[in-house]
Amino acid sequence: MRADGREQLQLRPIHIETNYLMHPEGSVLISVGNTKVICTASIDDRVPPFMRGEGKGWITAEYSMLPRATETRNIRESAKGKITGRTMEIQRLIGRALRAIVDLEALGERTIWLDCDVIQADGGTRTASITGAFVAMALALEKVSKTKKLAKYPIKDFLAATSVGILENKQVVVDLNYIEDSKALVDMNIVMTGNGEFVELQGTGEEATFSYNELQELLKAGQDGIVQLFEIQKEALGEEITSKINSRKEK
Amino acid sequence: MRADGREQLQLRPIHIETNYLMHPEGSVLISVGNTKVICTASIDDRVPPFMRGEGKGWITAEYSMLPRATETRNIRESAKGKITGRTMEIQRLIGRALRAIVDLEALGERTIWLDCDVIQADGGTRTASITGAFVAMALALEKVSKTKKLAKYPIKDFLAATSVGILENKQVVVDLNYIEDSKALVDMNIVMTGNGEFVELQGTGEEATFSYNELQELLKAGQDGIVQLFEIQKEALGEEITSKINSRKEK
Amino acid sequence: MRADGREQLQLRPIHIETNYLMHPEGSVLISVGNTKVICTASIDDRVPPFMRGEGKGWITAEYSMLPRATETRNIRESAKGKITGRTMEIQRLIGRALRAIVDLEALGERTIWLDCDVIQADGGTRTASITGAFVAMALALEKVSKTKKLAKYPIKDFLAATSVGILENKQVVVDLNYIEDSKALVDMNIVMTGNGEFVELQGTGEEATFSYNELQELLKAGQDGIVQLFEIQKEALGEEITSKINSRKEK
Amino acid sequence: MRADGREQLQLRPIHIETNYLMHPEGSVLISVGNTKVICTASIDDRVPPFMRGEGKGWITAEYSMLPRATETRNIRESAKGKITGRTMEIQRLIGRALRAIVDLEALGERTIWLDCDVIQADGGTRTASITGAFVAMALALEKVSKTKKLAKYPIKDFLAATSVGILENKQVVVDLNYIEDSKALVDMNIVMTGNGEFVELQGTGEEATFSYNELQELLKAGQDGIVQLFEIQKEALGEEITSKINSRKEK
Amino acid sequence: MRADGREQLQLRPIHIETNYLMHPEGSVLISVGNTKVICTASIDDRVPPFMRGEGKGWITAEYSMLPRATETRNIRESAKGKITGRTMEIQRLIGRALRAIVDLEALGERTIWLDCDVIQADGGTRTASITGAFVAMALALEKVSKTKKLAKYPIKDFLAATSVGILENKQVVVDLNYIEDSKALVDMNIVMTGNGEFVELQGTGEEATFSYNELQELLKAGQDGIVQLFEIQKEALGEEITSKINSRKEK
Amino acid sequence: MRADGREQLQLRPIHIETNYLMHPEGSVLISVGNTKVICTASIDDRVPPFMRGEGKGWITAEYSMLPRATETRNIRESAKGKITGRTMEIQRLIGRALRAIVDLEALGERTIWLDCDVIQADGGTRTASITGAFVAMALALEKVSKTKKLAKYPIKDFLAATSVGILENKQVVVDLNYIEDSKALVDMNIVMTGNGEFVELQGTGEEATFSYNELQELLKAGQDGIVQLFEIQKEALGEEITSKINSRKEK
Repeated sequence: MRADGREQLQLRPIHIETNYLMHPEGSVLISVGNTKVICTASIDDRVPPFMRGEGKGWITAEYSMLPRATETRNIRESAKGKITGRTMEIQRLIGRALRAIVDLEALGERTIWLDCDVIQADGGTRTASITGAFVAMALALEKVSKTKKLAKYPIKDFLAATSVGILENKQVVVDLNYIEDSKALVDMNIVMTGNGEFVELQGTGEEATFSYNELQELLKAGQDGIVQLFEIQKEALGEEITSKINSRKEK
Repeated sequence: MRADGREQLQLRPIHIETNYLMHPEGSVLISVGNTKVICTASIDDRVPPFMRGEGKGWITAEYSMLPRATETRNIRESAKGKITGRTMEIQRLIGRALRAIVDLEALGERTIWLDCDVIQADGGTRTASITGAFVAMALALEKVSKTKKLAKYPIKDFLAATSVGILENKQVVVDLNYIEDSKALVDMNIVMTGNGEFVELQGTGEEATFSYNELQELLKAGQDGIVQLFEIQKEALGEEITSKINSRKEK
Repeated sequence: MRADGREQLQLRPIHIETNYLMHPEGSVLISVGNTKVICTASIDDRVPPFMRGEGKGWITAEYSMLPRATETRNIRESAKGKITGRTMEIQRLIGRALRAIVDLEALGERTIWLDCDVIQADGGTRTASITGAFVAMALALEKVSKTKKLAKYPIKDFLAATSVGILENKQVVVDLNYIEDSKALVDMNIVMTGNGEFVELQGTGEEATFSYNELQELLKAGQDGIVQLFEIQKEALGEEITSKINSRKEK
Repeated sequence: MRADGREQLQLRPIHIETNYLMHPEGSVLISVGNTKVICTASIDDRVPPFMRGEGKGWITAEYSMLPRATETRNIRESAKGKITGRTMEIQRLIGRALRAIVDLEALGERTIWLDCDVIQADGGTRTASITGAFVAMALALEKVSKTKKLAKYPIKDFLAATSVGILENKQVVVDLNYIEDSKALVDMNIVMTGNGEFVELQGTGEEATFSYNELQELLKAGQDGIVQLFEIQKEALGEEITSKINSRKEK
Repeated sequence: MRADGREQLQLRPIHIETNYLMHPEGSVLISVGNTKVICTASIDDRVPPFMRGEGKGWITAEYSMLPRATETRNIRESAKGKITGRTMEIQRLIGRALRAIVDLEALGERTIWLDCDVIQADGGTRTASITGAFVAMALALEKVSKTKKLAKYPIKDFLAATSVGILENKQVVVDLNYIEDSKALVDMNIVMTGNGEFVELQGTGEEATFSYNELQELLKAGQDGIVQLFEIQKEALGEEITSKINSRKEK
Repeated sequence: MRADGREQLQLRPIHIETNYLMHPEGSVLISVGNTKVICTASIDDRVPPFMRGEGKGWITAEYSMLPRATETRNIRESAKGKITGRTMEIQRLIGRALRAIVDLEALGERTIWLDCDVIQADGGTRTASITGAFVAMALALEKVSKTKKLAKYPIKDFLAATSVGILENKQVVVDLNYIEDSKALVDMNIVMTGNGEFVELQGTGEEATFSYNELQELLKAGQDGIVQLFEIQKEALGEEITSKINSRKEK
């Protein structure tokens, strides 16, 4: 049993509130335990200059935290005048992950901006952002498809993410909260598609290492957790969008 | 009747959800119509270097908007690497307003950080921020006073703010939404204390001017609106905190 | 009697030296007591990108202080790499104020850059900047109208500004110098047009508040002071320009 | 056979020139095929402020490229005024990897600065940087240990890195050059210790995904490559340093 | 005869107005023809951190131009967020030049800040800045010496600067105005001391070169011009300060 | 005899390794004693916006040092977010010097980027950069002329640079190493063309001055040193390129 009463391979309670904000094309408030992230998807009918004329779309992500999303107040990156390395790494990861399951040609010359703003942090903010951003993006594309003709439905598969890790007591666990994460020997983020393929795998031993066998255990734990996330995403998106993604996936 | 069905001097529906986040000493989600702001108050047991040793506290505010708080997506200030003039003006206003009703000596050598993050914008974000930040600050001071001995209760009076303006049809209205604000001839923000004194008055004719008589009408409209905000603040804070502020005020 | 020997409602000696510099289309050195500001107006035959093709002009202002304009040396904003909130607030105020009395359509697709550089500061630099910038702008437009055909004379009225305040002894005074300003309970900047309308009103209680009656007294004091500024502006501009503004105003 | 004539699992020719520069405590020029990186290790007898008094050392890395290290000239990050996300990600990776095999307590309150400057790039610059920085660091610690008493030899094991990937033709290959890397479906960087444990694993499908079986193949290929890198490191460091690391490792 | 009617080796009319501003310890407005620079000297009773405890003083200079000092408006460096290379070069030159004739030990642990703000530019702004800054510094040191005990009078000699150049017609001229400077083949700035020694010599052929004989002619022309500047400085400083500098120089 | 055993007017051993890197059009590694600089020349078939349509080319230079090129580690300019005044001064000097001997019209609308990256510093990095950049540029133009038709061969003469100075013992020396440079009374950089004309002359007394006679001695010493550099450049470039430059020079 873990400090918060969970089993080793048990996720925290997860809730996705759709259409959370009035302005964005798609938006959710995703809660993973006490971690809460507002994810919005904005669709812009242009692509960045370096991509113009190629007939393809682009997906880009930004990530931020409110100053008091955390236990002690963080200085805003706008006040510092620059973005930290951690933020850059996370927003590059989110963008890359989402691009893996979108048919950028079917999207046409459009940019999807994914904004993930953490309002409360308790570990796993980057994986919650990916899981939530996927839903916000699907909602936004649904809205767009009502008024603009897309050549083909552009989402090729479901996408979700979770963290796994090895605690100080050598236990392999899934969906680490902040306390667990800050003391873990090994921390790994896994992003997977609905058909069980990997999109990203980032495993790190901070002042520690991990063996081949431990890696296998971590992968298994992550896979089991992510399967549950897909069910929650499907419920949030509803049958119509779910079946569009599924038909595209089968092809 | 106004475009959204309100009377000239009618505020939008206002709701203040207290203790909205788990980490900050005080926090609220304030909604003024469709405008939604997360206000947090963080208490730091130090003051800025230029104030050390003076036995007084300090209050400082920061203000930001999520990129999709608005109809079209705004570039983040962290991505631009600098804060806009508008943001600076607003955060200076919020800090100054709150300092006017706090006894900084009673606070002791502490800093109160007020963070106002607009998650949805529909006009009046700066006045909503002031009204909400007051509540967050009172909640934070309550929490602090449980564990740390304050010489005296530091809040000297209630504080709230609203906007008034003159629409294109020359009507004087209170609590302008975004559509009204963007077309108004005159826009005025009023910050007042519980005992009816002014703290800030900022009236601007954008490519327009206003007469002495119009000014009097605007002041009256603002005053009437702010009186209603105090009732909502009192309800949010509860009887205990309200009576602490009231006893301090009477002295 | 005030510390510098003035009556409560007496302005400091004011002098406006026109055509102070050789390069700008319009320029003045305005002295308000010991406060000295170089105001220049530059006319650019283009508007910012977001306004192109609308057939309207634009007015924008920048404000700065020499490092030793003040008692102790200030670090240059260029050395800091960013503009302070105070500077931003002031330059936004100057631009907004001037736009209120210019017919931007009559100006055509031109930008007027107003640069206000304080070479010596003794309180009231922002109001001196507005009063001086108005004269520099009128001189620049006169020069432009010699060579370029304007549809209509674009200045709709005179514009001047002063500060009023409540001193520690509760006296209401006009045109505060630095010593008075730094200790005042309430500080208010008033910008008015030649026909007695308000353009901007910014009243602030720094760790203090003010009543409705005090506000009325402050407004009256400001109005009386500004009337005198208009006379000084007219003398500086000369009869020809004054009568152009007056004829436009009467329409 | 690959485009450059290599077998699927064959590394490029690797050369490590030690003591390449006169000033740094440790330095190498590492060549991995046409990729050339100058790695230096500088030892500072202080730690960052947040670590003072803890009796532990710190390791931090910086990474950069000469503007013409690449086919087309890149704008310098100093000219842009900020570091790109890619650079930040790489320097965080290098620092984290090296910290995993150093006993920071044995190091004492010292900082090791690792600077990896790519003078010629042909793929695999981050893994070459890690492999080279390890050698530079060992050389620097050797020099330090001549004059300063270290409680214990601080390097706990060898450390090296390589890339593996899946090419467009679905082949799994090791040590991708630039051409291969830019077209690969999957790209994975692996950092391992001398005793075969993982330190970092970063696998990414850019607009692609990879299966569990493909992952196993990639891991195997990386492991085989890294074993060869350890031999080249040992030769560069010489017997004395190699045996110090080995004795520490056995404990 | 030159375009403005001057002889080849004739300086423009020069005027130095001392004590131009009320706040700085020393200040002048120097005019060299139409070039006008406000030079102030501020004395700070501290040195930069890297010099503390050495018992020596420091001199540092900053240089800037008002946006409309020139024919067309320049963007402010504060608005750009960075200082141009030209500004840096000039302010480094001014500081270095002044340090050459000050006994930094006699100054004690003090910093002299020299601020040179060009309000009107017509060529030769850097040399006018040096000539004016010398006078401002001497005035400031005079004021300081009234209240603080200096071990020794710190100014070791007079210092002034001018420009010389070769025009398109191959004429060697002194004190180039803007029109001459912008077309000159060779441009040289010369800084000299009262006893005829060089402090700085910066000669540049912009897309041109100059021979040994031309160099000799340029040096002679500069020397003759600078001798005249010393007389103007002496008149501005008055007999008392002049004789202090002279007695120090003789030793 | 000097500390490193050289005669007063003896250069350090100089070596120029051509085509040092695979990607740039031209590149060298130049060693002047222990000072080592990688100079690359990149040719871009465009000119900066302000020069378009004029039928002329442009040459621009950038200069940087690796953090451990020096005895103690320097913070990277990219990490600071800005370029120091020293770097700006040097890169402006390099660009200006090279432009003096190139026929920009013969170059056509092309930009030559010269990048000088100091990998090891022991005094004289800016003059080594100029001497090396000349060779890199000539190599790059040779490569370009193979595929693109140039109206005329664009290099008008050889160009090289060295430093001269006056040591504490009043000796005039050439090509100062770091130890000499840091203690020299006077430091002068001289850039000359193959036919003995000056391009740049920058002499500085840091807290010292120099007489007319000393200047003559410095110029003579520099001239003698630079003549030797031309021989080394010719050897590095080979006969074909040397004779192209010589024929252009003779015209």
